[in-house]
Amino acid sequence: MAPRLQSTQYLLILFCFFVFLSASLVAESTTLYYKWEVMSEIKSPDCFKKLTMTINGGSPGPTIYAHQGDNVIVELKNSLATENVAIHWHGIRQIGTPWSDGTEGVTQCPILPGETFKYQFVVDRVRAGPDGFVFDFFLIFSILEINLQAGTYLYHAHYGMQRQDGLYGSIVVWLPEGQLEPFSYDHDRNLILTDWYHKSSHEHATGLATPDPGFQWVGEPDSLLIQGRGRFNCSLLGSSSLASATCNTSSPQCVPYPLTVVPGQTYRLRVSSLTSLSALSFQIESHTMTVVEADGHYVEPFQVNNLFIYSGETYSVLIKADQDPSRNYWATTNVVSRPRTTPPGLAIFNYYPNQQRKLPPTTPPAGPAWNDVAPRLAQSHAIKARQGFIHPPPKIADKVIVLLNTQNTVKGRRRWSLNNVSFNMPHTPYLIALKHNLLHTFSQAKPPTGYDFKNYDIFNPAPNQEATESDAIFRLDFKSTVDIILQNANMMSPSSSDTHPWHLHGHDFWVLGYGEGKFDIYRDPSKYNLENPIMKNTVALHPYGWTALRFVADNPGVWAFHCHIDAHFFMGMGVVFEEGIDQVGNLPTSIMGCGESKRFLRP
Amino acid sequence: MAPRLQSTQYLLILFCFFVFLSASLVAESTTLYYKWEVMSEIKSPDCFKKLTMTINGGSPGPTIYAHQGDNVIVELKNSLATENVAIHWHGIRQIGTPWSDGTEGVTQCPILPGETFKYQFVVDRVRAGPDGFVFDFFLIFSILEINLQAGTYLYHAHYGMQRQDGLYGSIVVWLPEGQLEPFSYDHDRNLILTDWYHKSSHEHATGLATPDPGFQWVGEPDSLLIQGRGRFNCSLLGSSSLASATCNTSSPQCVPYPLTVVPGQTYRLRVSSLTSLSALSFQIESHTMTVVEADGHYVEPFQVNNLFIYSGETYSVLIKADQDPSRNYWATTNVVSRPRTTPPGLAIFNYYPNQQRKLPPTTPPAGPAWNDVAPRLAQSHAIKARQGFIHPPPKIADKVIVLLNTQNTVKGRRRWSLNNVSFNMPHTPYLIALKHNLLHTFSQAKPPTGYDFKNYDIFNPAPNQEATESDAIFRLDFKSTVDIILQNANMMSPSSSDTHPWHLHGHDFWVLGYGEGKFDIYRDPSKYNLENPIMKNTVALHPYGWTALRFVADNPGVWAFHCHIDAHFFMGMGVVFEEGIDQVGNLPTSIMGCGESKRFLRP
Repeated sequence: MAPRLQSTQYLLILFCFFVFLSASLVAESTTLYYKWEVMSEIKSPDCFKKLTMTINGGSPGPTIYAHQGDNVIVELKNSLATENVAIHWHGIRQIGTPWSDGTEGVTQCPILPGETFKYQFVVDRVRAGPDGFVFDFFLIFSILEINLQAGTYLYHAHYGMQRQDGLYGSIVVWLPEGQLEPFSYDHDRNLILTDWYHKSSHEHATGLATPDPGFQWVGEPDSLLIQGRGRFNCSLLGSSSLASATCNTSSPQCVPYPLTVVPGQTYRLRVSSLTSLSALSFQIESHTMTVVEADGHYVEPFQVNNLFIYSGETYSVLIKADQDPSRNYWATTNVVSRPRTTPPGLAIFNYYPNQQRKLPPTTPPAGPAWNDVAPRLAQSHAIKARQGFIHPPPKIADKVIVLLNTQNTVKGRRRWSLNNVSFNMPHTPYLIALKHNLLHTFSQAKPPTGYDFKNYDIFNPAPNQEATESDAIFRLDFKSTVDIILQNANMMSPSSSDTHPWHLHGHDFWVLGYGEGKFDIYRDPSKYNLENPIMKNTVALHPYGWTALRFVADNPGVWAFHCHIDAHFFMGMGVVFEEGIDQVGNLPTSIMGCGESKRFLRP
Repeated sequence: MAPRLQSTQYLLILFCFFVFLSASLVAESTTLYYKWEVMSEIKSPDCFKKLTMTINGGSPGPTIYAHQGDNVIVELKNSLATENVAIHWHGIRQIGTPWSDGTEGVTQCPILPGETFKYQFVVDRVRAGPDGFVFDFFLIFSILEINLQAGTYLYHAHYGMQRQDGLYGSIVVWLPEGQLEPFSYDHDRNLILTDWYHKSSHEHATGLATPDPGFQWVGEPDSLLIQGRGRFNCSLLGSSSLASATCNTSSPQCVPYPLTVVPGQTYRLRVSSLTSLSALSFQIESHTMTVVEADGHYVEPFQVNNLFIYSGETYSVLIKADQDPSRNYWATTNVVSRPRTTPPGLAIFNYYPNQQRKLPPTTPPAGPAWNDVAPRLAQSHAIKARQGFIHPPPKIADKVIVLLNTQNTVKGRRRWSLNNVSFNMPHTPYLIALKHNLLHTFSQAKPPTGYDFKNYDIFNPAPNQEATESDAIFRLDFKSTVDIILQNANMMSPSSSDTHPWHLHGHDFWVLGYGEGKFDIYRDPSKYNLENPIMKNTVALHPYGWTALRFVADNPGVWAFHCHIDAHFFMGMGVVFEEGIDQVGNLPTSIMGCGESKRFLRP
């Protein structure tokens, strides 16, 4: 009996410790309540009038500022006339709240006009549920394991191609009061970079979905925006009365965004990209940037003159305002990786007390050559976890999935495929279908985990006419460790390979390595960085190269993994993972009402 | 006992007669099954590229050809990316199927992208239900009462302002095989007239919903289409490369529509209007038209050179191809009632065997002066029920509702009001809310049935700052006879009064009279035409005038009554009637899933 009693005592002490820890963590968290209204408004962010989707009147929408562990509630009202919406909280893992991920077709039905949907999640932690300490007891283990994380995140529409109509914004998660970052700065600033099209997302979606010969590629963007402002050359429209009514270079909406700094001070600048298509370089004339954070994880600091950034990525860089304070400087963005026909994005790095609108006396920096892959690859390699903040990855994977990225024609439509399968979004969200056993709503096939490694020539256009489309998903063993090898290849036209930023919902992954050419399953894994790999939620797949990732499938839910280029995902460039569906709590009915979930209507 | 037995025998004979009649009627009806797909496509109906909503690739969509009493099933798939739809069957009374009326917010939730909705209704009769002859026995009485009716009907989007993006078409209902119309013709042809905007309905809706000073009126249409084809003057766009990529006068899509006729033959031309804004005149150079049908009812024939037609109206006219057969003639439409800045719609009245594209040697007829109300009023007065086909109206009304039509500013937004109340559509459809007692979803107030008759000056801008908005509805006593007096007035700018085509769902009404100036409740009813009034579903309210209607509230359901000008209804120019909601059968769950009907979700 005696040993048994001791064991119980031991457990009791442990239990009390966790209850205490749990209570202290819960005590620190705050609930932030937002009321947002999505509307359509005619805006001129680059001087050209376009129907823009706004949140509370703005594009970008309001920035969410929260402390690590805060509970965020966003009551989102859709005030569009005929169009639905859904908003994804990019980089927030939604642990315990997979139904709040905001991915239409995966985690929820779209939000109808006139309806209000409540997103509720913790930044970035398991939700402290109403089930009391027993629930919390288990929570604590998870919390310790998954690492609370302050950092820079995003939100944006995740339905059709609505993101490019302006529905996006930032989430800034600070450390709890009193805690310090491992680097110092005087001020915290935020910039979202985007590209901008004058055509509506409806027109783009229609052009992309039309079979050849009617297929219309979206083309290069009309302008680049920095924090929602850009500048289109209105004279390109000619001099008709229609042109002058549409484009107005003196609109206050398209004055370059001023980033005001006090001479001598150091700035943490959160730079993120939500471009629809473009890979970008970002630079501030005559200033060096020190990279310290990527996607919410601390980076072993390194300096850059040009920061390469891909859609869906976030970085923090430190900048010291140490140049001539009598003038302003250019902050610019340029397209890289694709031929540069879009003019640069221009903002003003404004030294106080110079006027915000005072143009710098110089020509904006030209940025790096668009087709020079080497410096971009070098930056990718340079990003490692910061010493003291390394989360070591599991040493081996339980499963390896190789995803060959190719452009194909499927049923007369241009598509992107993974291992020759192009993804179609079903109309009954997977989360509902899986939780409620509506398995007839999507293909129960197993998507291929590889391609013809031996014979496929990644340096030439895809010969495969056998590409298909499917809504089948990967079902992962709960808590298993999964490696993903993204393998790039040639597009349909010869000598071209795009850069694809891949984004994973519900997780951060370790970036184990990048390589050129075809991934060698026998040799390349030995080169993986298992020592200090950075964790991210979005990573670039470089032209003709491969990128290797590892993640642990420990977040019950259904999660999209896709190229963050709007048009590419729309054309099928994505997969979906299910893990631990049986661990998912009761789904809120607010996510239902579409597809087969309509069968739950019982008046 | 004996007399009683006789009575029973008599009843039995009567019963058998009805069973026989019922069987014979049912035997004649056919089920027509359509599969339609709503898509978005880039089209150039007037040479200018615009994102157009199509059905099975066309705008107009497919014409439904049916025989009186046929059962029509339309399986409508929404293949738009992010936008919902709903389609209204304009002029079809939906007796027994009020949930198939297709009016978003009134009779159904919108149809989501990816979903298929089944519209099912009889043209135009009570549905022959599965309840066998007992049900049919009662049906017969109704059928005899409500009059089966062949004629010309329409369908179109009834959600937001989608109709103007091209989602519309025709329904032609023929008499049963072997039955003859009371007029003769050799061929049956169909033309839908519309106006066309280059801006999307999204942009229009946004401009209309923006409070002053941002309010943007839709303005005059860019072109007029005849059977989906028109011609915009591309040179107005200037000569930029963007202009030439957008507008192409040599596109085959904007070749004038050819209406081919054989010399000497007589044509029944079904002419209908689904303009977004414009009142039109329609004419065929050198040809006279004999009006024989209006909105599915036979008209005492009269001749016109110009047919005035308002949005939502349908007419049949007889035309004899009796002119010089060696050439073609113009068929044209012109804007009337508003200053004419839109070029005429042009089609070719093509005498076989001349080439269809051969332009007539003449200048297109100019049409009547836009601001001459007299001939339009004269046409309205001329339309009477055809002798032998008169449905006499009830002699007196149980209820009179006077609706003063005014333009107002409500909460900083430009609106249209009825008796100072501007209509807002709720997000839980009334039919569901009323049937399932969700009465908190809309205002339970009683809308006003009149205005300040004595003091209100209809010839000057509305002085009333007290206008409000509401989603309250009129609840009518079942089977009661209701008179509606539409009273026109001055708009917000001085000396202007618009023409409003009012359309009633679920019923035909008798047009009792038209008048100029303010309706006099004491004197004007004595001038009503109770002898041979035409029945219609859409009628014009002329500038500064009044129009009096009568209908019997005998169709269980909830029905919209509104100005058929897209922008006017969007700005609040409508009311809703409920009648006999307790007689409505079980609602299909397919109409649910939005607003408060989501509470019926029970997984």
